[in-house]
Amino acid sequence: MSSRTGPLDHFHAVILAGGRGTRFWPQSRARRPKQFLNVLGPESLLQQTLARLGPIAPPERTWILTNQRLRKLVLDQLPGIPRRQVIAEPLQRNTAAAIALAARLLEQQDPDAVMGVFPSDHVIAKPATFQRVLRRGAKAALQGNLVTLGIKPRWPETGYGYIEFPADTPARSATPRPVVRFREKPRPAAARRYLKAGNYYWNSGMFLWQARTILRLIERFLPATADALSKLPPLGSRQFSASLRRHYPACDNISIDYGVLERTSDMVALPCPDFGWNDVGSWEAVYQLLPKDKRGNVLRSRTQVLSAGGNYVDSDKLVALVGVQDLIVVDTPDALLIARRQDSQQVADLVKALEAGGLTDLL
Amino acid sequence: MSSRTGPLDHFHAVILAGGRGTRFWPQSRARRPKQFLNVLGPESLLQQTLARLGPIAPPERTWILTNQRLRKLVLDQLPGIPRRQVIAEPLQRNTAAAIALAARLLEQQDPDAVMGVFPSDHVIAKPATFQRVLRRGAKAALQGNLVTLGIKPRWPETGYGYIEFPADTPARSATPRPVVRFREKPRPAAARRYLKAGNYYWNSGMFLWQARTILRLIERFLPATADALSKLPPLGSRQFSASLRRHYPACDNISIDYGVLERTSDMVALPCPDFGWNDVGSWEAVYQLLPKDKRGNVLRSRTQVLSAGGNYVDSDKLVALVGVQDLIVVDTPDALLIARRQDSQQVADLVKALEAGGLTDLL
Repeated sequence: MSSRTGPLDHFHAVILAGGRGTRFWPQSRARRPKQFLNVLGPESLLQQTLARLGPIAPPERTWILTNQRLRKLVLDQLPGIPRRQVIAEPLQRNTAAAIALAARLLEQQDPDAVMGVFPSDHVIAKPATFQRVLRRGAKAALQGNLVTLGIKPRWPETGYGYIEFPADTPARSATPRPVVRFREKPRPAAARRYLKAGNYYWNSGMFLWQARTILRLIERFLPATADALSKLPPLGSRQFSASLRRHYPACDNISIDYGVLERTSDMVALPCPDFGWNDVGSWEAVYQLLPKDKRGNVLRSRTQVLSAGGNYVDSDKLVALVGVQDLIVVDTPDALLIARRQDSQQVADLVKALEAGGLTDLL
Repeated sequence: MSSRTGPLDHFHAVILAGGRGTRFWPQSRARRPKQFLNVLGPESLLQQTLARLGPIAPPERTWILTNQRLRKLVLDQLPGIPRRQVIAEPLQRNTAAAIALAARLLEQQDPDAVMGVFPSDHVIAKPATFQRVLRRGAKAALQGNLVTLGIKPRWPETGYGYIEFPADTPARSATPRPVVRFREKPRPAAARRYLKAGNYYWNSGMFLWQARTILRLIERFLPATADALSKLPPLGSRQFSASLRRHYPACDNISIDYGVLERTSDMVALPCPDFGWNDVGSWEAVYQLLPKDKRGNVLRSRTQVLSAGGNYVDSDKLVALVGVQDLIVVDTPDALLIARRQDSQQVADLVKALEAGGLTDLL
């Protein structure tokens, strides 16, 4: 172990990798959700997440929260992470339970643990800037703060939540500030107002805090969760998995935002410079993030194009486009999606409809 | 053989089955063109053609003109036709050469032969009406006429050629009339004028005449073709195929319309009642001919549809449509076509582009 001390000595990265990502159907399936897909390069979003956290948290301080169905895929994609640090939830709960579980395990290992909580399915185009931000955030967390990362908005996005800072927040401040309020995904007019006002930042869903700080708040706001997890034996013990299966279902099924963060006045947020963050919330986002040909097509297959532009095409076979504009075309061995780009959020509804129709082989 | 005599006793059906039908790519391929596809029912267009000619011409008087690559497919699809009557052109010539060849072979068999020439890739929804028309046409042909079938137009189609009759042609006359002129595919305004005028009929591309009548005209207008074919030994002889390979290339590469019919003033046409004829010239035509769901979709695969209408979808896999309108989607194991319905004629250009690009495995 290194003998130097610094804000990252007790820093643990906790990556949430249990989500479904249905908006990426038909590539994302229950057995292979969005975070495991290579939609933006040769590595999966999960592998990219690990790679950019590597300089901040070594493997022995990196934890993956996932579920039983996906654990093997996580181990396959992240062979460098110790197996016991890939924790499978025995059933689907929301983020509060997963974060509480991680906090508890970390606190047992290291009472001074600072944890950073990261989604596994976002992209960050400028990892060096991101890593600088994390060092500042970890320092603030070490001082007992509950820190969320706010991202300076680049356009009036209506697909993200926003963090409202006090009106006097300087444009590029990088010190934590109190959060006035979390704002839900806004309508277009509000999003434009937020952008213009300057004190509204995108809510990245990335958090930093000490394990003990968040555990104290979970005890206060989600006592059932705290109580259920208090019954678990230490991680290494032989009874751990069985005990988790027994007690985890008693945890509250609620997000950390609703369950804790919006109920405390102690939140601060770090107004971050643009580090190229994108939550990749739909095929439209993938289209926007990738280079295009001169007609605005993103073509990830052999193609023959006649007067067609603005399309996203991914297939193993030759795809011929004639006259079509602004489509998402995603072809897989057993299902083919053709959607208007502007409707790509509705792919989630489509998956619900497949589910309702009992087409479980395609989910 | 029957002892009764009638206009059909010497009638032979000649089916032209050598075309490529590139507008039906990616289902139509060089090895399996349009006429062999089941785009409109359980039987191929070729099989449907034979079935509706059956009551008019028995197998021993039915001839199929095709090419060497397709001959086996014809024999497979039409097992009832004597093998020697399935003639393979040794190389691609246009319709004049194929018709001249058929006429020569028929005349050798039966000097009084009347031949009906039929495309193999059209549909006729009312075969009984069609068969009545053929009996009348055969009678006119037996009297030495060159008869083409004109179809009473039902809408101002711009994709068909037209036959102009004398202005006084009664609306539903069924006796042959002289042809004033053949008209090329018209612009929309002209098509509307033709429809209103009443003496313009769709040119079906179906002809009836005595073999000797057309041969006389071929000698006059296409002497190279007549000369080349005069060198062939009788069909049954051992040298026939080799001789055809040697002499057929010398035939003129021209359509019967340009090569003969538009150069003689002897043409008559039979103004036919609507027998549900359609030349099925594009995916759009297939879309129009098939039943639709309440959103106007023709869905020939498992599908999940969200706010999508007016689409034609054919695939072996589940196809999910979100928001898209008026598309042609044709999925095959190695190629996927997505075209605007209104652009479906351009699929032929697409195939040319694939050809130019050297993607011969997909043609």
